[in-house]
Order: sequence, then structure tokens, then C-alpha cells
Amino acid sequence: MASEFEFIDQLRRRCPVRPPVMKGIGDDAAVLQHATATSEVVTTDLLMEGVDFLLESASPELIGRKSLAVNLSDIAAMGARPTAAFVAVSLSRQWGQTFADRFYDGLLQLADQFQVTIAGGDTNSWDGPFVCCVTAMGVPCGTKPVLRSGAKPGDILFVTGACGGSLSGRHLDFVPRLQEAARLVELVDVHAMIDISDGLAADLHHLLSESGVGAELQEAAIPIHPDVHEMPSGKTPLERALSDGEDFELIFAVAEQDAIRLLAEWDLETPLHELGRITAAPGCWLTTPHGQRYELPPLGWTHDLQREYYDS
Amino acid sequence: MASEFEFIDQLRRRCPVRPPVMKGIGDDAAVLQHATATSEVVTTDLLMEGVDFLLESASPELIGRKSLAVNLSDIAAMGARPTAAFVAVSLSRQWGQTFADRFYDGLLQLADQFQVTIAGGDTNSWDGPFVCCVTAMGVPCGTKPVLRSGAKPGDILFVTGACGGSLSGRHLDFVPRLQEAARLVELVDVHAMIDISDGLAADLHHLLSESGVGAELQEAAIPIHPDVHEMPSGKTPLERALSDGEDFELIFAVAEQDAIRLLAEWDLETPLHELGRITAAPGCWLTTPHGQRYELPPLGWTHDLQREYYDS
Repeated sequence: MASEFEFIDQLRRRCPVRPPVMKGIGDDAAVLQHATATSEVVTTDLLMEGVDFLLESASPELIGRKSLAVNLSDIAAMGARPTAAFVAVSLSRQWGQTFADRFYDGLLQLADQFQVTIAGGDTNSWDGPFVCCVTAMGVPCGTKPVLRSGAKPGDILFVTGACGGSLSGRHLDFVPRLQEAARLVELVDVHAMIDISDGLAADLHHLLSESGVGAELQEAAIPIHPDVHEMPSGKTPLERALSDGEDFELIFAVAEQDAIRLLAEWDLETPLHELGRITAAPGCWLTTPHGQRYELPPLGWTHDLQREYYDS
Repeated sequence: MASEFEFIDQLRRRCPVRPPVMKGIGDDAAVLQHATATSEVVTTDLLMEGVDFLLESASPELIGRKSLAVNLSDIAAMGARPTAAFVAVSLSRQWGQTFADRFYDGLLQLADQFQVTIAGGDTNSWDGPFVCCVTAMGVPCGTKPVLRSGAKPGDILFVTGACGGSLSGRHLDFVPRLQEAARLVELVDVHAMIDISDGLAADLHHLLSESGVGAELQEAAIPIHPDVHEMPSGKTPLERALSDGEDFELIFAVAEQDAIRLLAEWDLETPLHELGRITAAPGCWLTTPHGQRYELPPLGWTHDLQREYYDS
């Protein structure tokens, strides 16, 4: 394997520097230059072998891609566009440089697609499992970032695309909803937004809780991804859509008037599914097609539980 | 162990939000607000159990402290002051929350000391080793960041403090040279600066290489830390000072006139040691007290080698 410094030199040549980044890889820190007063969003995600990917089933390229994509999904959820990302890795000494090269192939391809400068990082090796931590930065597409906390009673809740079954493969090659977020912010006043990483129900609960509101949803309105049928049995398709997680779709709330206009003017391929309505009363309620109403728990993945991953 | 979300809620209450951070923990990303045009520095470091610390000899508090301190050292090396940091961890499911709480105790104490907002992160658990990745951001103390690349022939090279033997304990509780960097930038025009993580020789080589210059040093001028005597035999004290690494002192270059003024006006406790002089000719040369001159290789830690750590 090349030394750490040879590797970093090679990487540096592969990483074009775009504004606001002025100085990328190769100093103690990267330098970004903001020409005017601006707000900025920053997010970080640590991905671990055996938890976020399995080396048996995911190529190094897909792991590299996912490590950036999950962060870009968070940037999208802020109604922002990405500017720079930082990539820290702990490589296995056994695998040699090939793994690292392929990891960066996948990561850099996605970075190029969305014009993200890989501006720095940290390269390590050890005998432990592969972990990587990407930190991404961005600037709002509109005048300010979209938080989780702005949903208001009467708002209409939407989700981009369908949910469930992501672990059958989609969690590795999803396209972060950056284009969708930019278009949403352009068309309407998005009150609140979150991306689905833990699960539709869990992440919707985060949005409701931060906004201090509740929601009423129709079971029939939950968009179920066909991938749920690729998953092991034990959960219904609806349960999968609500709790599988790693869908990386956007849940968002807009005023009713904006909802009508949005559906009329929406021109991207990704569908917008209306989920229900924000209420002043707390709690998230689902109504079955037979008219039965029940409270939806915040189903989804949390890190005190074993991930289903291990069984599938 | 508390769930991930309970833990994050507790953490959020412990992390005061200071400008330029407007929104810290609790959304898809943090929000920073820059009131005017500004440049910004960003750095990231991944620390791994068994490589950067040993659980047998380092307390969780010291590990937390070090994970932030190494990043603040990079911020100092840019002639900057820190603003925000992001902390991603993979916790062991076995250790419970106690380890996490103590890790953050150490980290937050250092963050408070230097007024750094912990603005976000990622909390994970698994059965693997403990890893943590901190990304820190800052703004220049002066009009612009200090890069590695600005050293000029004729410049005088300095180092803050003495080097070697850090692994006997100092690598865990060093104070990042933020105060020193701020005062340097205030007093003189610092042409180039780097912090010593890999080793004095290795990091000096980085600075020279980025600046396209060389250096002439006197062996007798290399400041040797008394901690070298705490280390196992096999290297001379000079070799340890040059190659041990993790000293987290600053190497910097200033014009000769500024060097004279700096030594006259320096009022901080941390000593400034003159190492030698920048040359137009490439290479880094040492002269012994007996007048013998030899080229200094870029000794130090790189990640294709086993760390001495394992033997000590």
C-alpha cells in the first residue's frame, strides 16, 4: 500500500476545488470563502461496516457513494445545496489501496454529479473494521434553511417517493433529493422538512415534536415501495413503509394553498405523495380504510437495537 | 442504555449554542450564520481505539478531550479561532451510557474552555471498537488563514514548546495552541504554520514541501521535551523529538525582522524556540554541534506503519 501521504497526494489531484472552497486537501484545514453574509448548514454521518453496509454485499464504490449520499440527503432536508464535504476513513491494512481507490471512485462520482468539493479528510489504517465519517456543508437554496420546527396546524404533509424495503439494495444507491429540495424551495414556502433515515414514522415524529404539533394521516395514503416485497416476511408492507428506514425521501409540510399550487406546478419525475394534515393536537394518528383511528408509535431504527440487517 | 434519541436530547441540553451557530443539535444539519463576508477553516480527525488511544490507559474523559483537542490544534495551525465542532461516535453496546457521558464530559469541558459550540454529530452503537470523528470549524484571527505554503527563503523557523515523548501521556491532555496562534497572528505576519501531529521532521517537511523551499537547522536548537526519558529505549532523545509526533506544537515561519520583534514582544508562557532558517534550496538539513551536516528524512508516523504505541 502507498503511504498515507502518497495516497493523499493522489486524492488531492482527483478533487477539483470549487467555490466557496478556496483551499482543499493539503493543509491543516480547508479554507472556504464566503463572499457575502450567508448562512451555512453542516451535517456529519459515521458509517460502520456491519451496521450501515456489509462488505459481502456492498461494493467499495457503493459504500463510498452511500457515505456521501446520506449526508447530501441531510443537506437536501435543510432546503440547501451542498458545497463541500470532508471524508475521514479507517482503512483495513489488509485490503491494500484497491479498496480505498474504489471507495473514492464511488464517492467522487456522486460528488461530481452534485458539484461538491471534497475539501479535506483524514486517512487512517488499522486492523479493525472499516468506518468512514463524512461531514458535508451547504448553503440554503432559498433565503434561509428549512428546519424541522416550522410545521403549523392546517399544513399539508407530503413525502417525496415511496418508502420501505430500502435494505434490499436501495439504501446503497439512492439519489439524494437535492434537486427536489431545490425545486420545492423555489416553488413554495416549505415550513418544515426532514429526510427519512430512521423510518417514516420515526422521522415524522421528529418533525412533529420539533414543531410542537401533531398529524392526522390516512393509512391508504402511505406510499409503499415495491422493494418491500424483496424483504423477509414478518412485517406487513405498511409496517415496512412506516418503519424500515434508509428511504432518504423528504417529508415536508406546506400551507394548504401552497400544497394545491405545488401539486399543480410540480414538474420533476419524483412523485409527491400527500400523507395527511398537521394538527394543533399532539400525537400522530392513522386512520384505516375502515375508519378505525389509532396512534402511530415512532417506529424505526434506533441505535440501541440490533438492525434487521443482520437477519436479512 | 438510553435510546439514541434520549441520549441526543440530554446532550443537546448540555451544549450551549453560540454565534455563528444559530441552530445546533436537533435538526438534519446545524445552521451557522455569517454576518459578513468571511473565510472559514474546516478540519476533521478520526480517532480509533488501539491506534489513537488505549482504553486500558486513557479515561473516557481524556479520549473525549483528545478527540476535540487534535482538531483545535489544526484550527490553531491555520491562525484561526474555533467556532463549532461536530462529534460522531460509534459506541460499544456493552459499555452502556456511562462511557458516552464521560467521553462528552471531557470533550465539553475543552469546548467550554475555548468557546466552541458542539453543534451536531452522529451517535451510533455497535459491537466493534470505539471510534470518534470530530469536525471543527473556525474563523481566521487575522485577515486571512495561515497556510503551510507561505514560507520564504530567509524566514526564521520557530516551534512553540518542546517535542518528543508525547505518547508517555501528553498526547491525551495537551492544550491546543490556540492562544499562542492568536497572539502570533496579532504580533507578526506569520508566513506559514503547521501543527506537529506526525512528528517535527515529518510535519516540517510538509510545510517546506508546500512552500517549495528548504531549511537549515542546528541539531542543538531542536527543543527536546523531558518526557522523552519516560519512553522505552531504542531512540535517542533527539530522534524522539524529531519523530515521536503528537506534540501538537506549532511550527511556523516569519521574516527575520518579524522574528526579532516577536522574540522581544512575546508575552505568553509557552516558549518560542528558534529552529533555523528557510532556504531557497530544497531539502531539510541538520548541522551537528561538531559541524557535520546531514539531510533530515521526514521521520514520523504514517498510517502504513504500526505505531510504537503497541510496544509501549
